[in-house]
Amino acid sequence: MTPTITAFERSPDRGQGLARDMRVRWALEEVGQPYEVRLVSFRAMKEPAHRALHPFGQIPTYEEGDLALFESGAIVLHIAQRHAGLLPDDANARARAIAWMFASLNTVEPPIIELQTARLLEGDKPWSEQRLPLVLDRIRVRLGELSTRLGDADWLDGAFSAGDLMMIGVLRRLRPSGLLDEYPDLAAYVARGEARPAFKRAFDAQLAVFTSGTPAG
Amino acid sequence: MTPTITAFERSPDRGQGLARDMRVRWALEEVGQPYEVRLVSFRAMKEPAHRALHPFGQIPTYEEGDLALFESGAIVLHIAQRHAGLLPDDANARARAIAWMFASLNTVEPPIIELQTARLLEGDKPWSEQRLPLVLDRIRVRLGELSTRLGDADWLDGAFSAGDLMMIGVLRRLRPSGLLDEYPDLAAYVARGEARPAFKRAFDAQLAVFTSGTPAG
Repeated sequence: MTPTITAFERSPDRGQGLARDMRVRWALEEVGQPYEVRLVSFRAMKEPAHRALHPFGQIPTYEEGDLALFESGAIVLHIAQRHAGLLPDDANARARAIAWMFASLNTVEPPIIELQTARLLEGDKPWSEQRLPLVLDRIRVRLGELSTRLGDADWLDGAFSAGDLMMIGVLRRLRPSGLLDEYPDLAAYVARGEARPAFKRAFDAQLAVFTSGTPAG
Repeated sequence: MTPTITAFERSPDRGQGLARDMRVRWALEEVGQPYEVRLVSFRAMKEPAHRALHPFGQIPTYEEGDLALFESGAIVLHIAQRHAGLLPDDANARARAIAWMFASLNTVEPPIIELQTARLLEGDKPWSEQRLPLVLDRIRVRLGELSTRLGDADWLDGAFSAGDLMMIGVLRRLRPSGLLDEYPDLAAYVARGEARPAFKRAFDAQLAVFTSGTPAG
């Protein structure tokens, strides 16, 4: 059964692949699962029909037969649990890979979301310029810790896993800030993820939505 | 094998059970799994020995034989997957319960963390008073959406699950702000969670750390 995901009708990042559908597309490409995409407008995202799928009126969602899921973390985990290629077979290594998924979403991403909020929603406020360095420093704390843990390894815990996919998806959101360049090892880690054929296929697919410019949803 | 978790040696919330070890304790109590606790000081949390367990120098961690995990979401999921009682048997319902875990941690908790940051780390800044209403309003958006989805139900998706445990753990962090009282249905939802015998046992255990006042770790 071919799953259907949702993505922005008009990509707010102009096709840089920073929205959360990119993580789900990447996971589906890694495991070789074809999928369909339904594009939704910002207006439609907040309406009851979409909120029935996603209570918080966001993308992506995932529909597969009787199953409807929301939250990119949950969708990627669902895909990773049902296909080979994104989680190790060993039970302990599997639990650790899942821990990196949660760390990406609950420890590393929140200060990055704060930066986006500071820029997009508070960029015109009188405190914006003075406050921004504090927000950036809070991200630097996490990046420094992540860099220390990564060390000389290619991936966070053994082979590439859904934990890396999620962490790289989160770190890519820093690209516009230039902050990632302060940590060459993390920039190289992200580049390793982006060099994967599955990443490239997913990236091209989300870019096509932006460049084709065809309204849908 | 009895797992060992870590918790704050000195609870910064003075025993209100708002730290993330509470979520893990609660999960362990729900499934009836005894556990041991190693208390760590703020200083020790940032040292290499603890960072080997938790790269970001936080609590809780979870050790069980050869397995070491960090991130409360990952630990609760691990417990829920290995014992009955926190996830439905039906595969789709199980995936949806896990989606609520991710929604708690990646959609509902980030603005709540932002409020704590605004108060604890920026409370003395010149912009604090003017900015706080914006932060509160961003939380209200999520609470309104959550309240709409919950409707008249007792729990988020059928029977009580790890998704509810995590969401209630996240919402409890709002208790000091009074914000939860603006949503009586969510306050009642949290109260239903707190009324569970397993919650009470977990709460008493974390409170005992604070009231005993014995230094450790």
